[in-house]
This record gives sequence, structure tokens and C-alpha cells, in this order.
Amino acid sequence: MADFAARVAAAVRATGPICCGIDPSSDLLAAWELPDDAQGLRTFGARCIEAFSGTVGVVKPQVAFYERHGSAGFAALEELLSAARQAGLLVVADAKRGDIANTAEGYARAWLDPQSPLASDAVTAVAYLGLGALAPLVDRAVATGRGVIVVARSSNPEGRPLQEALMADGTSVEDRMLEAIAELNATTAPGTVGAVVGATLAPSSFPLTRLGGVILTPGVGAQGATADAVGTLFAGCPTGSVLPNVSRSVLSAGPSVEGLRTAATRARDELAEVLV
Amino acid sequence: MADFAARVAAAVRATGPICCGIDPSSDLLAAWELPDDAQGLRTFGARCIEAFSGTVGVVKPQVAFYERHGSAGFAALEELLSAARQAGLLVVADAKRGDIANTAEGYARAWLDPQSPLASDAVTAVAYLGLGALAPLVDRAVATGRGVIVVARSSNPEGRPLQEALMADGTSVEDRMLEAIAELNATTAPGTVGAVVGATLAPSSFPLTRLGGVILTPGVGAQGATADAVGTLFAGCPTGSVLPNVSRSVLSAGPSVEGLRTAATRARDELAEVLV
Repeated sequence: MADFAARVAAAVRATGPICCGIDPSSDLLAAWELPDDAQGLRTFGARCIEAFSGTVGVVKPQVAFYERHGSAGFAALEELLSAARQAGLLVVADAKRGDIANTAEGYARAWLDPQSPLASDAVTAVAYLGLGALAPLVDRAVATGRGVIVVARSSNPEGRPLQEALMADGTSVEDRMLEAIAELNATTAPGTVGAVVGATLAPSSFPLTRLGGVILTPGVGAQGATADAVGTLFAGCPTGSVLPNVSRSVLSAGPSVEGLRTAATRARDELAEVLV
Repeated sequence: MADFAARVAAAVRATGPICCGIDPSSDLLAAWELPDDAQGLRTFGARCIEAFSGTVGVVKPQVAFYERHGSAGFAALEELLSAARQAGLLVVADAKRGDIANTAEGYARAWLDPQSPLASDAVTAVAYLGLGALAPLVDRAVATGRGVIVVARSSNPEGRPLQEALMADGTSVEDRMLEAIAELNATTAPGTVGAVVGATLAPSSFPLTRLGGVILTPGVGAQGATADAVGTLFAGCPTGSVLPNVSRSVLSAGPSVEGLRTAATRARDELAEVLV
């Protein structure tokens, strides 16, 4: 199987540079007049898949909103993942998992093993325990043509002091994270390790053109970054490697499938002008 | 309801200063001659609850090992949590969740809402996005007498460079994390926010005696820290605030309930000599 970055690039060529969030929060379920339970999650997800299939290449369900409903919520998520696969959509499970050793291996098996009911094309991860601790996830992703997308630079203000802290060699935590991701993509894990980089941030010292993996960038649309800002921040990155995530501004166009599809198409086309 | 730290202190007084991990990894399931599926998880958990009830005060299921089996794994975890509650055991769900805004609120509802099928007494969290981003978890924990235990200092070598990086004021990431946790416990969230501090580390600059919350400390037993080392690292911390986690050295005494109970009792009594 092609590596994850190649699969994303193919999806972007086929449709456009966008990832649509599937975020069945309490607020959105209420706005769509759906119950905040497993059945509401199911209906919400089915509408998203119907609207996004053929419109965008990648979707990103937010696992936290499913986890609120325990095993019943996870069953709804499994149904969504299965429907997305059948619709030919790539899925980034936004789970932000992170641990060490055989625990990291547990998360790898959950999200990146083709036999798992939660199998996704990529999973987001957090590396407070060090990027190296995520090796079981990276190794399994390499073996299965999947991806691990590690939070590197987040735009929320609470995260800035930590991510801008300086390591012993004077490199910031966030830039060292990006360097280490690039090293993996350049050596043992080609195209496998992506980074989450907030769209509303000013550039840091690390040249994102060298990452060698997918850049997932939230913050576009409702969260404040314009398509133009995205074009500037990621100028020079390989075609199909930058995946802006749009959630609220599309999902607030629901609950009608037609409304969702129109909003996703508009966001996709705006981004295509600056990114492809 | 008493705050989380007070509830842990009461449990430690009643039994002893130990938290027993419930880690149904592939390896341990095989060693116990159980299938690596939801039924295996169920049997593993039931034996742990039977062995630990009345022997220790706190258990820590590792969520990753349940997540491997998707919704069926989560259903087994829900059964475990219910059995632990009925047995009077405090439960720390080792999930290492972390996100921002309404996503963090989703995790708060999953693990800290008494109505959730996954309701636990505390959940572990990771704060690469900043401790402040975990406010929805902390707020819900305060409201429900539960806890949030944030990874601050991990002993795995991959995590040291990041956690020792220096913030703008010269404080290390890990010490700033501990300071911020102490601030929360001293102000808006008394007894609510704990820290994960590896037992095999040398002390850092932050005086752990000032944390004001529970210190969960893995690394005791099979991972290398002796009871004496724990006594030294946490000298002066309030009675009942330090919770060494013991997993492998107890669980490898399974699958017999009697073997587990004997191993847990021995570990508990060793730790009681240095900690209470």
C-alpha cells in the first residue's frame, strides 16, 4: 500500500485540500435537533458521510464526542468508520493518544491495525512523553500504510509557553518535534508521520517544506484563519501535503445534507485556490 | 463529597499506599491463558477486582488495553468500573487524555461525569496543549469530587528532553507543570489535580511537598524503583497523598486470585513501611 502521505496527496488531487471534521458535540447535536446519545451520534455521522462522500477526500471524527457515550458511543464511531471506508473517504481519528511501551502499542492496535473495529487511516497523537515513545504507533503505521499525526504547534494560547520552551540545544520544543518528525519521514517512516500545526500561528524556525509528511492544520474558518493565511503559512509545501481541517463553519450548515455539501464544497474550493 | 485527594487519603489510611494497575495486555492475557478479546478482558478484570478488593484502596485500569478491542473492549471496561465501584475501590482511569475547549469537555463528560458509563474517580491527562486547556476536566472534577492526574515528570528517557526544556522564565516544563498544578489545588480546585511523577527520577527543583494533590508514581517494582527510593523521593509529602502504582510485579503473580492478593499485599506492606 502507498504510504499515508501519498494516499492523502491522491485524495487531495481527486477532490481538494480539505479535511472535514465530524464533531458531534452537545451543541451541534442540539442545533441539528438530534438527541445527545448513541442514536444521535449515528444520525449525525451518517449525514456527514453522505454529504462529504465525493465532495472531500478526508474526514476527521473527534473521538472525544463519541467517548462521552462510552461503549455505545464507540459502537457509533465504529459504524461511522465503516461507512467512511465504504464511501472511499480517508479517516483521521482525532484521538490525541499518547503513552509509552506496550501501552502505546495498545493504542497502535486500536487505531492502526486493519483488523481493529476502530481502524482508521491515521490517528492524532500527543508526545509529552517524547516522540520516540510513540514508536509502536509509528511502526504499525509504516507496516499498514497508515499515519500518525503528532500535535506539534497548537494555536491555543495555553499551549504556547510549553511548546516554545527551549531544549538544551536552544531549539524550541515545537521545532524539535517538527525536526524529529521530519527525521522519521526521511529515514524509517517515509510519509508516515504528520504534524498538527495551527493555522493561526506565525511561522516558526522549522521550514515546514521539509516535513515530509502530512500537515493537518485546524483553525481555518470559524476559528479565525483565512484561506489566504493558510496559503502564506504553508507556501512551498508539496502539493497535497497540507490538509486544513474545517469543522464548525461546515457543520453549522447542517443538518441538511445538501447544506453540509454546499458548505464543504465552498470551503474546499476556497482552499484549493491557495493550496494546490 | 470530599475532594479527590481526601478520598485517596482515606483509602490509603484504610488499606495502604498503593494503586494496583489493571493492565490486560496481550502478554498478560496470554500468561493468564485468557483469550485476547472482550471476554478475556472481562475475566482478567473480574479476577483483579476480586483480588484487590479489601486489599488495596485504588486501582488503575489502563484504557489502551481495552481500546484495542473497540466498543466491545469499552463494554468490558464499563463492567470493570462498575464492579470496582461496588467493591468500594477508587478507580483512576489511565487514559492520558488531553485536548482543548469542547473536546476537553467531551473527555470530562466521558470520565468524570457520574452519569457516564465510564465514570471514574480520576482520569490521567496529558497537557502538551497547556494545563490551562484542561480546565473543562478540572472544573468537572471539582464539581463531582473527582480528580485529574496530569503527567508532569515521566521517567522514560524519550520524555526527558521535552520535560526538561526551559520556559521563558527559566523554569523547566515539568516544574512549571507542577507549579501550575499546585496553584490550582491552592486556589480553585483544592485536592483535585494530581501529578504523575516517575518513581525512578531524581528530584527536580519543585518541592513535591507543596503539590496539594495526589502524586501517582509509576515505576515501582518491575520497572526498577525500590520502596526505599520512593520513600526518599517523596519524603515529607502529606500522608496518603503519594500513590505508587504497581502493575507488572503484582499482575505477573496471576492468574490465581490468591496469588494476586498475596503479591498486592506484599507490595502494599513494603510501601507502607516507607510512606505512611
